[in-house]
Amino acid sequence: MSYDTITFLSDFGHADESVGVVRSVIRAIAPDTAVIDLGHGIRPYDIRGGGLMLARSAPFVAMGIVVAVVDPGAGSGRRAVAVEVGDGASILVGPDNGLLAPAVALVGGASRAVELTNKDYHLESEGPTFAGRDIFGPVAAHLSNGVTLDEIGTPIDPSSLMPGLLPVSREEDGDIVADVLWVDQFGNVQLNVDPEDIEHLGQRITMYMGETVQSAFRVACYDDIEGVGVGLVTDAHGLISIAARQASAATQLGLSEGNEVRLSSGGSARAEGIPVQLGKKEL
Amino acid sequence: MSYDTITFLSDFGHADESVGVVRSVIRAIAPDTAVIDLGHGIRPYDIRGGGLMLARSAPFVAMGIVVAVVDPGAGSGRRAVAVEVGDGASILVGPDNGLLAPAVALVGGASRAVELTNKDYHLESEGPTFAGRDIFGPVAAHLSNGVTLDEIGTPIDPSSLMPGLLPVSREEDGDIVADVLWVDQFGNVQLNVDPEDIEHLGQRITMYMGETVQSAFRVACYDDIEGVGVGLVTDAHGLISIAARQASAATQLGLSEGNEVRLSSGGSARAEGIPVQLGKKEL
Amino acid sequence: MSYDTITFLSDFGHADESVGVVRSVIRAIAPDTAVIDLGHGIRPYDIRGGGLMLARSAPFVAMGIVVAVVDPGAGSGRRAVAVEVGDGASILVGPDNGLLAPAVALVGGASRAVELTNKDYHLESEGPTFAGRDIFGPVAAHLSNGVTLDEIGTPIDPSSLMPGLLPVSREEDGDIVADVLWVDQFGNVQLNVDPEDIEHLGQRITMYMGETVQSAFRVACYDDIEGVGVGLVTDAHGLISIAARQASAATQLGLSEGNEVRLSSGGSARAEGIPVQLGKKEL
Repeated sequence: MSYDTITFLSDFGHADESVGVVRSVIRAIAPDTAVIDLGHGIRPYDIRGGGLMLARSAPFVAMGIVVAVVDPGAGSGRRAVAVEVGDGASILVGPDNGLLAPAVALVGGASRAVELTNKDYHLESEGPTFAGRDIFGPVAAHLSNGVTLDEIGTPIDPSSLMPGLLPVSREEDGDIVADVLWVDQFGNVQLNVDPEDIEHLGQRITMYMGETVQSAFRVACYDDIEGVGVGLVTDAHGLISIAARQASAATQLGLSEGNEVRLSSGGSARAEGIPVQLGKKEL
Repeated sequence: MSYDTITFLSDFGHADESVGVVRSVIRAIAPDTAVIDLGHGIRPYDIRGGGLMLARSAPFVAMGIVVAVVDPGAGSGRRAVAVEVGDGASILVGPDNGLLAPAVALVGGASRAVELTNKDYHLESEGPTFAGRDIFGPVAAHLSNGVTLDEIGTPIDPSSLMPGLLPVSREEDGDIVADVLWVDQFGNVQLNVDPEDIEHLGQRITMYMGETVQSAFRVACYDDIEGVGVGLVTDAHGLISIAARQASAATQLGLSEGNEVRLSSGGSARAEGIPVQLGKKEL
Repeated sequence: MSYDTITFLSDFGHADESVGVVRSVIRAIAPDTAVIDLGHGIRPYDIRGGGLMLARSAPFVAMGIVVAVVDPGAGSGRRAVAVEVGDGASILVGPDNGLLAPAVALVGGASRAVELTNKDYHLESEGPTFAGRDIFGPVAAHLSNGVTLDEIGTPIDPSSLMPGLLPVSREEDGDIVADVLWVDQFGNVQLNVDPEDIEHLGQRITMYMGETVQSAFRVACYDDIEGVGVGLVTDAHGLISIAARQASAATQLGLSEGNEVRLSSGGSARAEGIPVQLGKKEL
């Protein structure tokens, strides 16, 4: 079975040639395979952030090979793996450090997994620090050409793969205590909260974030947020995001990934200092 | 009629996976269509800057589909549209907020336009905030596959499309009063001035920019600018740009997009403080 | 002879549409040629940095056409050239300013070279400042289509091409005096030092960098560096790099490209202030 698309994400950034070199290596091995750059702006070493990027994207990624590289342990004892999902619909290639785990879980778990032990499918390397170029890229290219998992490595128990633990929000005295999963490039703040989780809190909600208190209305879209306040929108992934109108809610509220936000029903006398959001359109 | 190229520009940046997800969606619908990333570094929400980017690029963009997304009003009342130009040579897809207008005007206006009302060609979405992924990308892919404008939406009067108003320079007492259209990545400052507009000012020109006064010679290329001064060059789009030699003229003069610059003939006793440019090669 | 891959690097960055416009121009001329972006994050005007990027990548770049643009002299007297290497395996296209030289030398020198004098293969241009769009991109596309070097320009003596001088490390009183070649996106500091050059210095080495003195152990991979110190690793290009563990060694030591580093055997009483690295795994 061959695959015609490789989706590639990493923490390589665009300041140097790392992405281009991996693409060159793939091109040499699998010239007919399309490579889609999912994104290379994951913060250096941010395994959690990379895992979330891949999980957010999973419903949209083309079937085929995914190569994901956030790999601070390159060259150390961490395993290099390929993980089959969807009974062979896709194969994810990367380090076994939790990076692949959220996406694998989201699509129903791994059907098979191998450790990438067959060096015939790696590049010979001067040093062990660039596994994206020397192991993951070439293996992804060979898999897309139809080389099988059995050829590429040694079977391992999928349940032995490093899990990627994600925080879940919890209810406490009627409030919802949530975590910031992600701040997107516009500064929208995604919480681990489904719309139904906060249905009982009503349309006006007060958020407690450390010393900061802020009220917000739930709104249908960014454009429905009025003035300089913030609103709560159901975002493109079906989760609740805190957003500002043509501005960064993260900057305005001092929030970043991993911060805790407590959502409480109604307005609050403490919610001052920062202008209160009066959403013009209540859902 | 099918199209083999989609050109894609946006304000998504490269920090997250937005560009990659839209490309994945296009790949799934139109696997044989080439996608060219024109640029995704438009400042967030900068409709004017995005419109200018597309207009500057229009003479070079491959015939086919263009998908342009700078869309602060996603999910609100703003229309999503497809605009045919060149009697079907190209179709531009994006929000009807003025983003497409400068390019459409530059290539002779729209021959047809539709509002993207047929949801059969959209992705079902959790929330309305990411129209690039859910509407514009899929519609562009379907159009490249040969789906027609009639199928994709409801005809609208091209004259009802939001215009993109660009400032024009004016003559005042023999001087030319211009605006900064664009600062490129090297810090060159593009003005809305054609070379013939300032022919009568001669080779040495004094520029008044707020409190700053600066003299400059007209030069043929960046390398002809001497020392730490600035020069006036006819740039790659046929407009007058203020440039420094291997340095940012924008930083040196404190100029940014939208600023006004008055160009006057000859040198000036006020043009001191900042070193005066002595172009080594007069045109 | 036609070529199916164009590899493209430049100092254009991703803030504006320069990369996309060159790709659009190539697409229009050579629609069946794959374009690989090697990297566009070279610092503006940094010919040395661009030359090193290309040389580091040379062993991995697909055979075919390479177009490299770091071109502060666009439109001036500098020559635009195409340089054949490997008896026609690849052709490098760019300005004759030293940018191509390190890669050309690395692959065994030029077999032929031409100056790009035939304007039939250039775009007509409003101004001379964007040779990437108007000369180098179109010429690369035509070469990939099978247009010959003879058609594209005038033969020149390969020995007349501008050399790219790179510093070599030297031995001095048993020490090795090296230069920083490159700081990668993770802050790893690559030196012009082969592992065998410092074999005689042993596993513990003291580095003198201006006022800073730092001891480091040689380690096999980043993960073997302990705590907040730095280690010396054989990097993915077979050179010695100074690295920190999930942190930037360049920031920690205040090093940037071109700085001098003196490597001496053993620890040092002066190596304090900055925590001394105690590598957990000695090679």
